[in-house]
Amino acid sequence: MAKHALSVTRDEDFAQWYQAVIAEADLAEESGVRGCMVIRPWGYGIWERIQRLLDDRIKETGHDNCYFPIFIPLSNFEKEAEHVDGFAKEMAVVTHHRLVQDESGKLVPDPEAKLEEPLVVRPTSETVIGNAFARWIQSWRDLPVLINQWANVVRWEMRTRMFLRTSEFLWQEGHTAHATEEEAREETLRMLEVYRSFAEECVAMPVIAGEKPENERFPGADATWSIEAMMQDGKALQAGTSHFLGRTFAQAQNIKFQNRDGQFEHAWTTSWGMSTRMIGGMIMTHGDDDGLCVPPRIAPQQIIIVPLLRGGPEDEQIKRYCNELWYELRKQTAFGEPLRVWMDTREVKPVTKRWGWVKKGAPIVIEVGGRDVAGGNVSVVRRDRLYREDGKLDSVAVPRGELLGKAKAILESMQTRMLLGARERMEASISRSITDFDKLADYFDKNGKYPGWVEVQWSRPTGAALDKVVERLKAHKLTFRNVPLNAKPADGACIFTGEPAVERILVARAY
Amino acid sequence: MAKHALSVTRDEDFAQWYQAVIAEADLAEESGVRGCMVIRPWGYGIWERIQRLLDDRIKETGHDNCYFPIFIPLSNFEKEAEHVDGFAKEMAVVTHHRLVQDESGKLVPDPEAKLEEPLVVRPTSETVIGNAFARWIQSWRDLPVLINQWANVVRWEMRTRMFLRTSEFLWQEGHTAHATEEEAREETLRMLEVYRSFAEECVAMPVIAGEKPENERFPGADATWSIEAMMQDGKALQAGTSHFLGRTFAQAQNIKFQNRDGQFEHAWTTSWGMSTRMIGGMIMTHGDDDGLCVPPRIAPQQIIIVPLLRGGPEDEQIKRYCNELWYELRKQTAFGEPLRVWMDTREVKPVTKRWGWVKKGAPIVIEVGGRDVAGGNVSVVRRDRLYREDGKLDSVAVPRGELLGKAKAILESMQTRMLLGARERMEASISRSITDFDKLADYFDKNGKYPGWVEVQWSRPTGAALDKVVERLKAHKLTFRNVPLNAKPADGACIFTGEPAVERILVARAY
Ligand SMILES: [Zn+2]
Ligand SMILES: [Zn+2]
Repeated sequence: MAKHALSVTRDEDFAQWYQAVIAEADLAEESGVRGCMVIRPWGYGIWERIQRLLDDRIKETGHDNCYFPIFIPLSNFEKEAEHVDGFAKEMAVVTHHRLVQDESGKLVPDPEAKLEEPLVVRPTSETVIGNAFARWIQSWRDLPVLINQWANVVRWEMRTRMFLRTSEFLWQEGHTAHATEEEAREETLRMLEVYRSFAEECVAMPVIAGEKPENERFPGADATWSIEAMMQDGKALQAGTSHFLGRTFAQAQNIKFQNRDGQFEHAWTTSWGMSTRMIGGMIMTHGDDDGLCVPPRIAPQQIIIVPLLRGGPEDEQIKRYCNELWYELRKQTAFGEPLRVWMDTREVKPVTKRWGWVKKGAPIVIEVGGRDVAGGNVSVVRRDRLYREDGKLDSVAVPRGELLGKAKAILESMQTRMLLGARERMEASISRSITDFDKLADYFDKNGKYPGWVEVQWSRPTGAALDKVVERLKAHKLTFRNVPLNAKPADGACIFTGEPAVERILVARAY
Repeated sequence: MAKHALSVTRDEDFAQWYQAVIAEADLAEESGVRGCMVIRPWGYGIWERIQRLLDDRIKETGHDNCYFPIFIPLSNFEKEAEHVDGFAKEMAVVTHHRLVQDESGKLVPDPEAKLEEPLVVRPTSETVIGNAFARWIQSWRDLPVLINQWANVVRWEMRTRMFLRTSEFLWQEGHTAHATEEEAREETLRMLEVYRSFAEECVAMPVIAGEKPENERFPGADATWSIEAMMQDGKALQAGTSHFLGRTFAQAQNIKFQNRDGQFEHAWTTSWGMSTRMIGGMIMTHGDDDGLCVPPRIAPQQIIIVPLLRGGPEDEQIKRYCNELWYELRKQTAFGEPLRVWMDTREVKPVTKRWGWVKKGAPIVIEVGGRDVAGGNVSVVRRDRLYREDGKLDSVAVPRGELLGKAKAILESMQTRMLLGARERMEASISRSITDFDKLADYFDKNGKYPGWVEVQWSRPTGAALDKVVERLKAHKLTFRNVPLNAKPADGACIFTGEPAVERILVARAY
């Protein structure tokens, strides 16, 4: 076994490895405020790429961005509370609007500045956006309303894990209203497909798109769809959801329109979201024991140039050579965008730089020393093929012209290879042959550390019957993921009830 | 006088006019949450353009974006409170992390979920970012640290006005740390220049860049610089600030580094910000009695195509003609970016559409009817030249090919004309000839509704002497704006103290 850049490997301790990748790649760190993280430049740069590429797709499908208030009056939740037994929601509640010094000089919320009605820091914007829709929508001419918001949201979490579950996170939430059920259902699936193609094409993260079972639906939704990705430990990560909300929310929020016949109807609504969780998914899909591996399309920088300076007279020549290289590369494009190329001139040892960029997952690192300049070469390290067969680092000197000619192709093929590699791994880890519950349980309990997923046939029980099934799964730490859109039709018996199956559903351990 | 599209003119009531522009252009609306607004698609689209263009400049000058938590522990403000007599800050304070139903079924903050230490919703991120800098900076090799954050911030405001003063607003805040005073001072002025050139080149809003007097400095700053824009009512709007913080914040937050000689020093820091206030500035710089007028570089859509459909057989031909036009225009560029062109096919009366786009301030509206198609023409309305000399709407039929050939030039010259027009107006409204205080007071009290600004010579008093001057100005509702960077040297006596003047400073009423 070759030595690796991280102090802990995936196989030794996957959870520890995950934290190590984040720390060593300078993606994010604890902020000192519970459950909130600081997203550092390399991590935020990845988020900016995700935002840009997903936002393009959201706009191409006809949506406009808006911005809604961070605060939601407590009374907006009253209606929800009426319907939920033992309502309790972990949310940040603002009760005062001023700080003052008390008699002892200590800083406290000013008792004289207590809000009449507390405000909740938005956990999602369903209710405020619904109110706006009710104002904006009067006639069929106003429909559809197709909007999206990029925002921070807060859900008070007891146990947090960076990018996967944090009290504050960044996301986009789409909200739409339509005149007909058909149109709203189409919208729900259109955005599911936007998420699927975005995850696969941009994040190189293969996913299974499908419908969530009833017990996993967004509260109040008629149907919830998700994309599910498989992490390298075989667990599932829900990476995006799209909800068909029927008329439930329109009725609760009085979103009505006059139809072409002059009659008033409630609108049909949808919502859909994707968050910084996607970065956690990327880490656990593509990371290895040397750190992060960022797909070229979402890498903040795709090519890093490291001049190997020694404080000698040849340094000037190396710098000039690197500057020209930087200039030539930046004139090129990949994926229809200019290459993102960065020159690392920090006063740090070259070997530290090299491994720093490997751990950050930069797709290509180019090192240039005196010998390279003399020979008209550059030394290239590809993040997706770090080692040669003999276990040594695969750094190859190639003619400068050859690299310039191939940079685009290397990046584009790297992106494809990452997706195909991850998809192969995922497909190999989905078992479709288990036909009774005991074997299902055994499969997960006895099939090694990373059992992967199992697709089973089921009769789609509902209500109490479904709850019973969910409990049985829970006893083995298992959950339903979704009913894949492209699964084969059912042709056997339900693994849970023995009744004739109606469809196939994925079972897995999950984040 | 021609009739205008808004129900209130600037001259009748400038404040009402401002609200009318925002409402009629669908920029933003009250949210029902006090002091917080909903930014609608056209308003948010302008903000997205501002973000994109300013972000490019922030990155070109070497800064990386990060993200810091929305919550700041109350104790972070303790140090500030120690130094400020009668400390009281209007901030949103989170005291609980859960809602529950009380015995009567009412929803309340859960008394059992009271936070040990209250959290403040960030009014600015100085303290959390300072803490991060203290962690990140160890050696001179780590400097400079150049970062920026795009975020929402909250300052509880009693009287709010959309875009100008809202409890929640969107902004960017840059924070940097440097090894030397000289470098930090350079950074402060570099970002001031970024703001100046951005405001003028992108928002077509002329500004005066200069240093704020001592009484207007950011608390704790060694120097504060601003760009000041003149609204059409002659008032000043501070549109961006850049602070040289010296070592004050580094000392308070323990931001230290080991220098090249191995000794520990405190770093030198800066901060700078620009916000959604810029949209308020744009409205009051470029709006007219027909509504908003958006500079082409920041217009979400630059050209609107309105097919004049009549439900007749020629509709198909009009649609085809418009589609081709749309396609051809989108292949073109202006300002180095593809043209943003939108086809308005809503089922709304053409005259409503036309005036809707005029009120929204779309730079060019193209109307296409059957006669235009037959003649190979398009009818063009330019937002910056809405009326002919005879007072009628200036809608000109031009050959389609001519428009295609000129679209880029029209947009680019419109942008320039808007800047030059606003600059001329501003220059004409700055008086530089007033040499005694009574005349200054008279100038503002008796010089009509829109007196503009006065540049006066002063001796730069400090401390109590300055406070006295500020009080005298305040009695006439006047404020100091800044000491313009490019003002002439002083050559007379201070208008306030009679002592020899050392520089010139702007006096104005302000937002
Ligand atoms: Zn088990
Ligand atoms: Zn007066």
